Amino acid sequence: MFEFWRDIQFVDVIEFLGTFAFAISGIRLASAKKFDWFGALVVGFVTATGGGTLRDLLLGETPFWMLSGVYFWCTVLSLFFVIGFRKHLVKLNNTFFWFDSIGLGLFVVVGVEKTMALGFDPWVIIMMGTITGVVGGIIRDILINEIPLIFTGELYAVACIIGASVFCIMDHLGVNLTVIQITTAVLIFIIRVVATKFKIKLPTLKGEE
Amino acid sequence: MFEFWRDIQFVDVIEFLGTFAFAISGIRLASAKKFDWFGALVVGFVTATGGGTLRDLLLGETPFWMLSGVYFWCTVLSLFFVIGFRKHLVKLNNTFFWFDSIGLGLFVVVGVEKTMALGFDPWVIIMMGTITGVVGGIIRDILINEIPLIFTGELYAVACIIGASVFCIMDHLGVNLTVIQITTAVLIFIIRVVATKFKIKLPTLKGEE
Amino acid sequence: MFEFWRDIQFVDVIEFLGTFAFAISGIRLASAKKFDWFGALVVGFVTATGGGTLRDLLLGETPFWMLSGVYFWCTVLSLFFVIGFRKHLVKLNNTFFWFDSIGLGLFVVVGVEKTMALGFDPWVIIMMGTITGVVGGIIRDILINEIPLIFTGELYAVACIIGASVFCIMDHLGVNLTVIQITTAVLIFIIRVVATKFKIKLPTLKGEE
Repeated sequence: MFEFWRDIQFVDVIEFLGTFAFAISGIRLASAKKFDWFGALVVGFVTATGGGTLRDLLLGETPFWMLSGVYFWCTVLSLFFVIGFRKHLVKLNNTFFWFDSIGLGLFVVVGVEKTMALGFDPWVIIMMGTITGVVGGIIRDILINEIPLIFTGELYAVACIIGASVFCIMDHLGVNLTVIQITTAVLIFIIRVVATKFKIKLPTLKGEE
Repeated sequence: MFEFWRDIQFVDVIEFLGTFAFAISGIRLASAKKFDWFGALVVGFVTATGGGTLRDLLLGETPFWMLSGVYFWCTVLSLFFVIGFRKHLVKLNNTFFWFDSIGLGLFVVVGVEKTMALGFDPWVIIMMGTITGVVGGIIRDILINEIPLIFTGELYAVACIIGASVFCIMDHLGVNLTVIQITTAVLIFIIRVVATKFKIKLPTLKGEE
Repeated sequence: MFEFWRDIQFVDVIEFLGTFAFAISGIRLASAKKFDWFGALVVGFVTATGGGTLRDLLLGETPFWMLSGVYFWCTVLSLFFVIGFRKHLVKLNNTFFWFDSIGLGLFVVVGVEKTMALGFDPWVIIMMGTITGVVGGIIRDILINEIPLIFTGELYAVACIIGASVFCIMDHLGVNLTVIQITTAVLIFIIRVVATKFKIKLPTLKGEE
């Protein structure tokens, strides 16, 4: 019982930090475009929840954030954090990067499990895990009228795809669920950190002329 | 019976005027970008129905405009109105502004009631009311490749949030439904008109450097 | 039995070619914007499946591509095709145009039939047929941060609208289903080809000043 409670708490903390980091990234980009408080709140919320929302709509489920207020209030908190600590945000870039990477791993795990429980094929499961991780950032960039950052060279999405694939393979092999979850999240975290540190990128498509 | 019929008619007229004003705003912006008739029709329709559509998708309901042709045909009418009265539109700016503001109040009331009937928490209800009012304009601006106007300083969204909140509070206090509906719509109308007249805006987020 | 099998195969081939042509169009535009492989894959997939996905979400159905892997793997194939035959793509422009136009007719027929089976009004059916044909290209252009091509002068959407309308009329008149399907698809194909050859366009809305 105590063990169970501790696990819940731990996952909740990670999910909160991930949501916080995703929302902060949206709010900071909105701030660079001189959005007002409402605009920044929308962009922050969409960055944090957009991936899971598209996943849930595609799966025919009620979007996760409509069933618990924590994601919304976490975004409100993020907004006031950015407003209050504006001058110190740059110094915290590294911290946000860690939160973001840890959160990404968890988001993908959540997306994979939810899709798996509905009995879809592995490639749909992997796609939904990836959508959970990356679509928030894509909608964020559409809202601020920029080409999505994730399309022009980061291993962000590849980390999600590899992580979700490993989840499916380990599940197929009958590995213990907790082991799978932790391995997947840690793997995504490591790929993202290593790729960022060594500037590893996917090849870019060359134009035709 | 007669009373009931009159109420229906009155709400229908307001809804039609609101849809008309929203569609006109989309079609005029499309016209400024030299869209063809089809493009203008799409932008007009999305402006008028996009908020309610996202709300209905999130709530797992069939989008409202698929169940009655009035919204679509109203948009077609708006298109021909813009084509026919192109040179006189500027003079009608004030009229459109009134229709738009009246329509906004009604749209929010409709969104709030629909969400409330499904038993969601107050913050979800307020959010859905606001989504109903503002998301059409956001998608409109994405389609014409501009940063959403609503994010850079208008009290438009705040009017929706305040109106929807007052609706929830009055409902909690057991006020008569018709009174709540009228109060909410009028309040949203007044906030929007006053904010526009006195150029009241939300604070803008400052960039970090 | 043999006849049935042959029909299925034939429709499958057309659907595959259509998906291929739509995906290629997305991937080539992504390549012009220097997207990486992941970005190009996303844009290609969204171009090929976006219309049917929005249609299915609006209809409350599971998106068609989640039930069969052929659309996803066809997009992967398209990506490698563009990477491998980069220098020869321009020479194939005509071939892609044929595939695209044939695919368009089929996509509209599929969208119309799916909506009709759910008992919606004719104007919803026509709209869903058109959405199936054109929305993929709209989302593609949003993702590459351009104004949707379809809004500024092509008869692309009009071909879908006319084709879907003819489908509804023939169905109302009790014409044999196979005849309706073939007539609709061929009609859309012809309108698109003729409009492109003779540069027939919809009127553009004039700005107000």
